[in-house]
Amino acid sequence: MTRNAFYAQSGGVTAVINASAVGIIETARGHPDRIGKVLAGKNGIIGAFKEELIDTSSEPESVISGLRHTPSGAFGSCRYKLKSLEENQREYTRLIDVFAAHDIGYFFYNGGGDSADTCLKIAQLSRDLGYPIQAIHVPKTVDNDLPHTDNCPGFGSVAKYIATSTREASFDVASMSSSSTKVFVLEVMGRHAGWIAAAGALASDETTEIPIIVLFPEIPFDRARFMTEARSKVEQYGYLSVVVSEGVRDQAGKFLSDQGVVDAFGHAQLGGVGPVVANMIKQDLGYKYHWAVADYLQRSARHIASKTDIDQAYALGKAAVELALDGASSVMPTIVRTSDTPYRWKIGSAELDKIANMEKTVPRDFISEDGFSITDKCRSYLLPLIEGEDYPPFSRGLPDYVRPRNQLVPKRLGSEFAI
Amino acid sequence: MTRNAFYAQSGGVTAVINASAVGIIETARGHPDRIGKVLAGKNGIIGAFKEELIDTSSEPESVISGLRHTPSGAFGSCRYKLKSLEENQREYTRLIDVFAAHDIGYFFYNGGGDSADTCLKIAQLSRDLGYPIQAIHVPKTVDNDLPHTDNCPGFGSVAKYIATSTREASFDVASMSSSSTKVFVLEVMGRHAGWIAAAGALASDETTEIPIIVLFPEIPFDRARFMTEARSKVEQYGYLSVVVSEGVRDQAGKFLSDQGVVDAFGHAQLGGVGPVVANMIKQDLGYKYHWAVADYLQRSARHIASKTDIDQAYALGKAAVELALDGASSVMPTIVRTSDTPYRWKIGSAELDKIANMEKTVPRDFISEDGFSITDKCRSYLLPLIEGEDYPPFSRGLPDYVRPRNQLVPKRLGSEFAI
Repeated sequence: MTRNAFYAQSGGVTAVINASAVGIIETARGHPDRIGKVLAGKNGIIGAFKEELIDTSSEPESVISGLRHTPSGAFGSCRYKLKSLEENQREYTRLIDVFAAHDIGYFFYNGGGDSADTCLKIAQLSRDLGYPIQAIHVPKTVDNDLPHTDNCPGFGSVAKYIATSTREASFDVASMSSSSTKVFVLEVMGRHAGWIAAAGALASDETTEIPIIVLFPEIPFDRARFMTEARSKVEQYGYLSVVVSEGVRDQAGKFLSDQGVVDAFGHAQLGGVGPVVANMIKQDLGYKYHWAVADYLQRSARHIASKTDIDQAYALGKAAVELALDGASSVMPTIVRTSDTPYRWKIGSAELDKIANMEKTVPRDFISEDGFSITDKCRSYLLPLIEGEDYPPFSRGLPDYVRPRNQLVPKRLGSEFAI
Repeated sequence: MTRNAFYAQSGGVTAVINASAVGIIETARGHPDRIGKVLAGKNGIIGAFKEELIDTSSEPESVISGLRHTPSGAFGSCRYKLKSLEENQREYTRLIDVFAAHDIGYFFYNGGGDSADTCLKIAQLSRDLGYPIQAIHVPKTVDNDLPHTDNCPGFGSVAKYIATSTREASFDVASMSSSSTKVFVLEVMGRHAGWIAAAGALASDETTEIPIIVLFPEIPFDRARFMTEARSKVEQYGYLSVVVSEGVRDQAGKFLSDQGVVDAFGHAQLGGVGPVVANMIKQDLGYKYHWAVADYLQRSARHIASKTDIDQAYALGKAAVELALDGASSVMPTIVRTSDTPYRWKIGSAELDKIANMEKTVPRDFISEDGFSITDKCRSYLLPLIEGEDYPPFSRGLPDYVRPRNQLVPKRLGSEFAI
């Protein structure tokens, strides 16, 4: 029996989420006896509510394969968390109506912890309402905070970008430090988990030693201890790089970025933690500083993506389809690490009820005793994830990213749906 | 006659300044009959004052060639502008003492407009005091603001980084824009000249259209006009990227970044113009935004350097030595463009008195009439400068940058010198 598949991208996008989409679409195209069209939600799950379904079968193979080297979410994404079936039956009923109208028997949801929860609910709905659909979650999050998988696609590439950028900027500040800038502060993503910040520490290794302090959201910020450590590093090396997670909080649990800063008119200013830490260094130690906030640059930097990450993102998309073809539902394909050096991995799977709404932060034994760096155990974990380069093609000096036409299939339901 | 050469890196460093150093050192090594050692100032010209001279001849060829792919200033840099001979004879006398003690007959100074001025003064000094030294300036500045050269090494690589990053982040915000972030603001360097900001506009072209507003330091910021343009772009495309130069000023000539922002304790906060513009958008239009400040990341991003830029940086270092061997002084080798498409260039030279303290900003006919983008003329100028990739070698997932040992030659003067 042939049924169509629905695919949606969820939450913040990454440099490699499209590689998972390609894994799904290419694998599905190899099984025309089982899977008809892969219909992608325009702007994620919202596309399902609105019955805005992108016909990926109308895209030529060259565009699909080009998505493998294209960052962002090619079909659009959204941040939308479904409530429980009891609280919002209307939304679930609508999804079933749309799925039934388009003969969708496979639901592939590509996202983080929240979307794993949505995917789980779709699977439960399928059982409760007797509508047959197999719901498979495909992991994706730069935050790397999903449990039961070695890592999450998107993270390895951000980690490579942050480690590379930290090394490069540290070389820069070292050049200037004798008479000018002594401290460089880089703000990175990771509101709850410090995985990305941890990657900054990789910039320093036995062949290229760099003084780096990492500020983790897992470790309450102690201004006095930080300043002692910063001064000590500057006195020893002449300069210092600080990699600070956006989610660092003070000892009272308040975000460091939330300093109540107002402009001349009294308007609240939404700043970052990077300038806050830099200003503190200036106030307490008097060092000249520079700061950067990588923001979207870090998660969209396909030009410096990790080959390991790309390979795994594709493999997980492919595995999701294979799991579906094997009859599975309510599961997520995972990366299982079988060896650190050389890095070896295989595909596994985990039940969604063990994934949804769980958060894997950086374990204490991955963070050095003083709270300012990573341990060898953490380094062994992280290094394979940034291994390998996978440059996109360039044309006239710029990466040649593709855009699918995103043609919608005709609507079959007369009704509109307000979200 | 064989005499030694002095080389120093000056001002803010770049992804390719070391490539110029390699051009000088390798070319000098090919003329042992004329040039003895190349002695590099430790931390720039300060190394000359302190008689801290790095013996580059003690570095193996592999390290020197490795510098070609290493960002930052390998010998250290500084921001130090010599006063006129009348105002500060003491400093000039010291330089001559140090040069004489080490038999230095060639002075290669690698920097921007200020260092061209210093180089010019050294040449004048040579004539006035009868100490024979040939002073050659090697252009370097990410600001691209030196006259009489097609462009300045360091700029092409920053331009490639900013164009690439703007394209990548724009793909990201486009994915999220339906229900979340609609405007992305990227703050870039360029306090007086908008060349780097202009490069952001390259992210959009005929095959990959992206709504981008560029805010130039050359165009006074008009908040109302900017908001009208921003709203119009968001309504047409659904999203918008803004590339803003750190040097943008309001109509009264005040830096936009200088908003008199204070923290909860009344301390002045040194923020960037990126968050200022983002906050204005939020206040005036209500759009959800993200902002990034690239800071040092942009000028140290050797991993995405322009091959054109690297080639020219090396060629200019080589040409500086060749000019010296031809007996020239008080000159700077330049890039002369002979064709746009295909891009062809050759080495020329310019007298330093025509370079020093001049500033080439973006001409009005390179900026679109509305002041928010670039013209075709500007695009034709910029595109060749970002052409070509020249990836550094990677090891274990990270770029493999080299560090010279920077061994100093023994001091020959007993005297210390306070700066």
